[in-house]
Amino acid sequence: MSGLTVREIGEFGLISALQKALPASTTSGSALRLGIGDDAAVWTPEVGESVVVTTDSLIEGIHFRLDWTDWRSLGHKLLAVNISDLAAMGAAPKLAVLSLGLKGSEPVTGLIEMYEGMGALAARYGVMIAGGDIVASPDRFGIHVTACGTTRSGRYLARTGAHEGDLIGVSGTLGASAAGYHLLQAMDSPTSATTADLLISAHLRPEPRVALGERLLALGATSAMDLSDGLFGDLPKILKASGFDATVDRTAIPVAAAVRALFPELWFDLATLGGEDYELLFTAPLGRWNAIQEGATSVGSTVTQIGRIEGRNPAGTLRLRETDGTLAVVTTGAFDHFR
Amino acid sequence: MSGLTVREIGEFGLISALQKALPASTTSGSALRLGIGDDAAVWTPEVGESVVVTTDSLIEGIHFRLDWTDWRSLGHKLLAVNISDLAAMGAAPKLAVLSLGLKGSEPVTGLIEMYEGMGALAARYGVMIAGGDIVASPDRFGIHVTACGTTRSGRYLARTGAHEGDLIGVSGTLGASAAGYHLLQAMDSPTSATTADLLISAHLRPEPRVALGERLLALGATSAMDLSDGLFGDLPKILKASGFDATVDRTAIPVAAAVRALFPELWFDLATLGGEDYELLFTAPLGRWNAIQEGATSVGSTVTQIGRIEGRNPAGTLRLRETDGTLAVVTTGAFDHFR
Repeated sequence: MSGLTVREIGEFGLISALQKALPASTTSGSALRLGIGDDAAVWTPEVGESVVVTTDSLIEGIHFRLDWTDWRSLGHKLLAVNISDLAAMGAAPKLAVLSLGLKGSEPVTGLIEMYEGMGALAARYGVMIAGGDIVASPDRFGIHVTACGTTRSGRYLARTGAHEGDLIGVSGTLGASAAGYHLLQAMDSPTSATTADLLISAHLRPEPRVALGERLLALGATSAMDLSDGLFGDLPKILKASGFDATVDRTAIPVAAAVRALFPELWFDLATLGGEDYELLFTAPLGRWNAIQEGATSVGSTVTQIGRIEGRNPAGTLRLRETDGTLAVVTTGAFDHFR
Repeated sequence: MSGLTVREIGEFGLISALQKALPASTTSGSALRLGIGDDAAVWTPEVGESVVVTTDSLIEGIHFRLDWTDWRSLGHKLLAVNISDLAAMGAAPKLAVLSLGLKGSEPVTGLIEMYEGMGALAARYGVMIAGGDIVASPDRFGIHVTACGTTRSGRYLARTGAHEGDLIGVSGTLGASAAGYHLLQAMDSPTSATTADLLISAHLRPEPRVALGERLLALGATSAMDLSDGLFGDLPKILKASGFDATVDRTAIPVAAAVRALFPELWFDLATLGGEDYELLFTAPLGRWNAIQEGATSVGSTVTQIGRIEGRNPAGTLRLRETDGTLAVVTTGAFDHFR
């Protein structure tokens, strides 16, 4: 296998090699009736479960660079970003299918390592890799993942559920992924400094907040989403979907100490505009906050109050309370792939 | 909108325009709890239903050419090929999510027409378009569709179920799509001859055999798949998966009269190697044949016996009985995207 490209091994040899790279627990299971190798996968959710479906594409040169990431981290991330979308709904991830668009020049060993990275994350969360499609994509390598999860009794966390007076919370700390991205940009040969490694790892191997999402749903959060476009790109989506204004306190936004230390000028922008944090942003009534905080601790997460949902407004204006108490309207929109 | 490109309207303007292009019945429904506009779609299958999941990518220049197809037909086909995979499992299609990889130069009106073509097919089959992802794909336009369907009580038609003595059947006639592809290749400016139009339409706007797939499952077929790589590319997949040899009669293969008439030299190759027929290939015990034939008629389809499953053999050899009664081994494999 070593040294072979996709073109040399062929489509059917590749499918067989990739299937072998996955842990057995991810390719069969009591709920997976039929997996890789047929026209479609067959999966039986439990009675009363709703199915949550999300799809994401990662394109070479746009969402990842093969000279910045190792193949195993790429496999981790392509599944992690999809699981993160399910976590934001409060759903338990169950199954994923992949479509690979390949140039043909990709090294087979690289793709096998990518499947190993994906398989390790899938095994950890009990996700079945149920099949997919492999096609020629002559100019650019692309990976297209669809993940299915479940919630009980039709309940889920949408972007539309925020109410006036709700607290706005965020999990973990923000900015590490964007800081890691800046470090990768700045370094010709990545250093092995521990702090830098941590930030780069946050960018290359984000951890989806699955258990926290399920706790948020169970403990009465009113809305949630995962942070992929940065706090100031994503929070307005909840505000518009729910139809309320909000104010966020500059001093309350949790930023990793390493980000502040390494980026004394840029840290606030990295934490609010940088994107790809894959932490959960959510709203919850004041009366649920203590339970949510305890629930987060019980699953190894932290949550921080950063602001408050205010009066009804279909346009959903976001204001930032500066350190001196003055208010500034946040005008930054979400990242647009085409502008 | 007229004349604008994706880059000019931007990602969020495009999402809004595409959503409006879909019939209302495809974007909401009692089983669809949450659709376009959140991190994921939420859908509640009925109690006792198994979920069937399939994913397919269509890449510009590989799977379609924008100078050969109109946008509406492209929208039809991208959903049809996924629904066809569900039909091959005996599943009823329910929901689809799309990821679009866009160069940015695509005309917004074209993409709206594509969504209209997809929406018309989705409405006809009761399929909900539940959301997706839009990303930049700088060199090539690509569409990545994942479709979910359901079957009752965990039953489905796999490729592994064929048994010795089963009849091999195929729906409709073969070769029309490949003939249409040849006509498109041959014509600088497509003629409006009715026959040619019909064949081109078979290539550009295949009709998934949903009702037939459900009847095949209900009436005791033992295996099925949809014909995308041609009869001689696909039947060996059932034989290998099930572990049996088979013989097919040359004279029994149903070929459209128009294909024979327009391609006096090539018609047999078009019908057996051409691909993209999206008819159903299946096996069934002799004793179920009459019921299946009546069931096919009742849903407006035809089925034709073309051969028989024979003795056990993990390699699954396919033989062709020639007009003079002699047997020839079919060595053609399936289409490999990289060889």
